[in-house]
Amino acid sequence: MSEQYTKTPRSTVNRLKARASYNHDMVHSIIDSAPVAHVSFNPTSFDEDPFPTILPMLAWTGSFTEPDAQETSATAIYLHGHAASRFMRLPETQKEDSGLPGVPVCVAATLFDGVVLALTPFNHSCNYRSAVVHGYAVTVTSPAEKMYALKLITDGLVPGRWDNSRVPPTAAEMTTTTVLRVDIVGASAKVRAYAPGNDRADLDDTEMRARVWTGILPAANQYGAPIPARENLVQNVPEYLATFVAKENVEGEEYARRVAGLPGPGKA
Amino acid sequence: MSEQYTKTPRSTVNRLKARASYNHDMVHSIIDSAPVAHVSFNPTSFDEDPFPTILPMLAWTGSFTEPDAQETSATAIYLHGHAASRFMRLPETQKEDSGLPGVPVCVAATLFDGVVLALTPFNHSCNYRSAVVHGYAVTVTSPAEKMYALKLITDGLVPGRWDNSRVPPTAAEMTTTTVLRVDIVGASAKVRAYAPGNDRADLDDTEMRARVWTGILPAANQYGAPIPARENLVQNVPEYLATFVAKENVEGEEYARRVAGLPGPGKA
Repeated sequence: MSEQYTKTPRSTVNRLKARASYNHDMVHSIIDSAPVAHVSFNPTSFDEDPFPTILPMLAWTGSFTEPDAQETSATAIYLHGHAASRFMRLPETQKEDSGLPGVPVCVAATLFDGVVLALTPFNHSCNYRSAVVHGYAVTVTSPAEKMYALKLITDGLVPGRWDNSRVPPTAAEMTTTTVLRVDIVGASAKVRAYAPGNDRADLDDTEMRARVWTGILPAANQYGAPIPARENLVQNVPEYLATFVAKENVEGEEYARRVAGLPGPGKA
Repeated sequence: MSEQYTKTPRSTVNRLKARASYNHDMVHSIIDSAPVAHVSFNPTSFDEDPFPTILPMLAWTGSFTEPDAQETSATAIYLHGHAASRFMRLPETQKEDSGLPGVPVCVAATLFDGVVLALTPFNHSCNYRSAVVHGYAVTVTSPAEKMYALKLITDGLVPGRWDNSRVPPTAAEMTTTTVLRVDIVGASAKVRAYAPGNDRADLDDTEMRARVWTGILPAANQYGAPIPARENLVQNVPEYLATFVAKENVEGEEYARRVAGLPGPGKA
């Protein structure tokens, strides 16, 4: 059994506990499988503006070791953006008297695996895999770690892409891009991956059941055939791209279909 | 031209302004097209816990008129959950001395439309449609509005599903479900929907361009064939379900493919 995140009041799943997990591997695999994550933070102090905000961002988990170091750091989440963006500048602009080791953020990633159509609307649901992570965002200042993170992010989009694109980066590219590392303080995952749950009373109503279809609409992100840009000079779609598309499509479709037939822990 | 949300410091898109929109229809259509939204809020006061949190939720826009009223209310976002859940109870438990008209929340929805593979990793991106809405969440107390919202939410999953499921709800179903309405105070959308943008210097490097494939991997949520539950008694997949699946699949795939070929406003 892999390592677990400690349950805290902040991270504990209160509803439908059977769907909850605090397993490192589960949390990290959801973050890394979702093409887009959502990052929440409080842009100013609560007194000035009580609204947290959300940015859709790329987010991948990683663990960096300085070339001369003995130990690999704990797994963190890496984010990036333009150096001039408000969010990327937040760790630098956060008031020093906050006493916090970074900007408190929440990173969430959700994979939508299907619509669950039960007999009553109130047992309707979705099949999904979601991870919610809390951590402190800090600016990555080590050049080696920044390069590690940018390769991680690029290869997160398509494995192998970094080495198959125009690298190394120019000095200007590195300067205008900021990388943030989210040091994780807590995390949880929640997964629903099974057939509809129906109430006994509804199942006993055979007249109604003859009218109301119950089951799952399995769903998955699917990639279409790669579309070359007008400026593209490479004749055939490279193997690493074709492999990625085929693998993602088959795995996503198969997962959604397989879990649609699994028995649940109980109703809904 | 349809109505616009007012630009405020909170809602103004600072980076890549060409991708921004404050158009009501654009914001609402993204919220309504995404199967899952992410809702962010501060569970306690900032002093007690500086972390906002995120819940993946169903969220649809709607506009309700009481049966005896003359005017239809402004468009809001409806959320629902178990009456005992922390988030659903937040409007009731929020300290009265907060002086706020509801719980400040942020609702974000993102549609992932493809991976943008430019020549340099630094011009990589995604095609996407995202909406970020700020508003005050309040408990829906009107029975008519609550029923309106629950139908809206069910039909948001699959149009026509409410009337084709076991309705009306039982008293227990209504009691154990809470509906929140998010009264919108600001919103923005951000859309990237075009071919890769490449730097002049990279385009001039024909030797590199002979190695590096540039283009788009179009992506869309796709539904598989509906999978009946073990308890299903309806022989054929009903027309409204088959139509929904076919329409979503064609529209999602066509949109991602179409925008992949559109010229952008400039680089990246």
